[in-house]
Amino acid sequence: MATYVLVHGAWHTGDLMAATAEPIRAAGHAVHTPTIAGNNPGDSRATTGLETAIASVADYITGANLRDIVLVGHSYGGMVITGVADRLAGRIARLVYWNAFVPNDGESLNSMVPLHYRALFDQIAAASGDNSVMLPYPIWREAFMNDADGDLAQSAFDQLNPHPYATFTDPIKLSVNPAEMQVAKSYINFTEDTALPHSHGWHPRLSEKLGLFRLVQRPGGHEVCFTNPEGLAEAIMAAGRD
Amino acid sequence: MATYVLVHGAWHTGDLMAATAEPIRAAGHAVHTPTIAGNNPGDSRATTGLETAIASVADYITGANLRDIVLVGHSYGGMVITGVADRLAGRIARLVYWNAFVPNDGESLNSMVPLHYRALFDQIAAASGDNSVMLPYPIWREAFMNDADGDLAQSAFDQLNPHPYATFTDPIKLSVNPAEMQVAKSYINFTEDTALPHSHGWHPRLSEKLGLFRLVQRPGGHEVCFTNPEGLAEAIMAAGRD
Amino acid sequence: MATYVLVHGAWHTGDLMAATAEPIRAAGHAVHTPTIAGNNPGDSRATTGLETAIASVADYITGANLRDIVLVGHSYGGMVITGVADRLAGRIARLVYWNAFVPNDGESLNSMVPLHYRALFDQIAAASGDNSVMLPYPIWREAFMNDADGDLAQSAFDQLNPHPYATFTDPIKLSVNPAEMQVAKSYINFTEDTALPHSHGWHPRLSEKLGLFRLVQRPGGHEVCFTNPEGLAEAIMAAGRD
Repeated sequence: MATYVLVHGAWHTGDLMAATAEPIRAAGHAVHTPTIAGNNPGDSRATTGLETAIASVADYITGANLRDIVLVGHSYGGMVITGVADRLAGRIARLVYWNAFVPNDGESLNSMVPLHYRALFDQIAAASGDNSVMLPYPIWREAFMNDADGDLAQSAFDQLNPHPYATFTDPIKLSVNPAEMQVAKSYINFTEDTALPHSHGWHPRLSEKLGLFRLVQRPGGHEVCFTNPEGLAEAIMAAGRD
Repeated sequence: MATYVLVHGAWHTGDLMAATAEPIRAAGHAVHTPTIAGNNPGDSRATTGLETAIASVADYITGANLRDIVLVGHSYGGMVITGVADRLAGRIARLVYWNAFVPNDGESLNSMVPLHYRALFDQIAAASGDNSVMLPYPIWREAFMNDADGDLAQSAFDQLNPHPYATFTDPIKLSVNPAEMQVAKSYINFTEDTALPHSHGWHPRLSEKLGLFRLVQRPGGHEVCFTNPEGLAEAIMAAGRD
Repeated sequence: MATYVLVHGAWHTGDLMAATAEPIRAAGHAVHTPTIAGNNPGDSRATTGLETAIASVADYITGANLRDIVLVGHSYGGMVITGVADRLAGRIARLVYWNAFVPNDGESLNSMVPLHYRALFDQIAAASGDNSVMLPYPIWREAFMNDADGDLAQSAFDQLNPHPYATFTDPIKLSVNPAEMQVAKSYINFTEDTALPHSHGWHPRLSEKLGLFRLVQRPGGHEVCFTNPEGLAEAIMAAGRD
């Protein structure tokens, strides 16, 4: 039985991983779903950067004294688990990237997205008053929730929170790049995930920065935590098993 | 309940969309399957160009006074629905491209296919006597009907009609390119569709010309109207819903 | 009813195709699963090159006087069936490449793999004493058996045999390249096959060297003969039918 730590993406909280955690627990594993600093209701968006975000998950893990972890990161969560793995290497059994960013030392999330996304985020953050970003609903509905009906797209959108933009623009500091990390690695790619356009997509463009890794692919969009949590749980266990 | 207009591809007629229309109607929607000018039995192949083809579908829509349409185009039908959307913008709720060409102003269908297809079509049209093209059976069987058995490949082939080649070579005239059209858009990609070779394929090469769009992907080849009409109907409804 | 000859990949034997052959036989076809020279227990790895390997399968076919064959090759087996098709064209009804190498005249298997694989193989062969290569277990487990659990990955690994490296480095001699061969062709692509990295993958990079071919795609990794032999058998029959 393994210990899974599921690290959510931008605009999400740990609570939104509950439906995914349930079938993994039912299979006998321990599952943790912390919320990254900057995404809790009361957190300051203005003052949270990538270092703070990474530290909050690392602190969660050392605070609970978790070991032999399968550490899963979704989307922006890939930035966070990469930083955590660099700091807490001895506690991690396997890294699992789920349609997630894979940074090398010095790279920011924004350095891996298309120019038109950066321009849009810059504009939204500038208008926010606290350097936070939200996703315009039409992009969420068409590019993130393409496998949902309109009601689910809307109800999921209503649960999102403004995201601290500095975590997208801060370059990550790593002592070693993911390909050289001495830990097992998996990449879960949902094949209809167009949160990044497929001409500039998740896999293999970002996944292959891991060096040797295990690919798990399933049908679905970027937000299977809403549209298919059972399928996501199955994929996570296929990615996380020995 | 929505109003679907299904626009067939080259060599096809509206009648060949009947098996796909049926489950969409059974789900409560209105479905129209007009035949594009140039593909009816008696139509002159020699004198039908892209403008005539587009006008025939636009006339069908205004003649029936259809509004709030989900306008679906297959393959060559992508040229036609793009032209119709430019002329009848106010009547279209969503454009759905199903393994379809997406032209910008001034582009022809032929400008989006590999050189060896153009050379083949030129040769066939020149030999036809009326500037029409047919698909050689081996290409139909292997590249279009790869998911069918031999009997279905042959019986479907027997229902095709010679296609007016000018509709492939005429550049389209648009006042605005698809990415800038103020209408919702979806792209349905069947993942084994090799009517275009995958190195020069439908998605994301052509789909991303839409700007923001909803991707729906399913297993199947180019001719799921024959090999899996129920699956195609399901995909069209997932692409067309709000 | 067709006659199938299934040609295994590197490190495998014909016996490992037994579970795949069974459902094809149950559907009424004749199935042969020869072992390529160099992969039998007693064969000399040091002295077996690509010509010897090809000749051994050609001899099997002429020895059993097989005709109208659907000749299927897996991975390295694509080198072998291409060579056999060039020598025994009159006996082959269709070539089926299953995540297999497609060589043109003068190409070696090694010329189609990433540089880091070649460097690794060179090193392993140099240390072997008989110019043979084995796959390190971590690569097998993560990149070849990504769709298996750990027990199956290990038990399958235990059945592999050292492979004669000259068959990877010898250029093939062909009188005609696959695209010009006058025989029907299919390519089966398992979509999670990362034995070649997807940025430098099987399909369409290698498949399109066939010219006109039938694509069959299914979910699964490189070693579906272990992880899903029934699904593989179904795919082979969809690729091999008229």
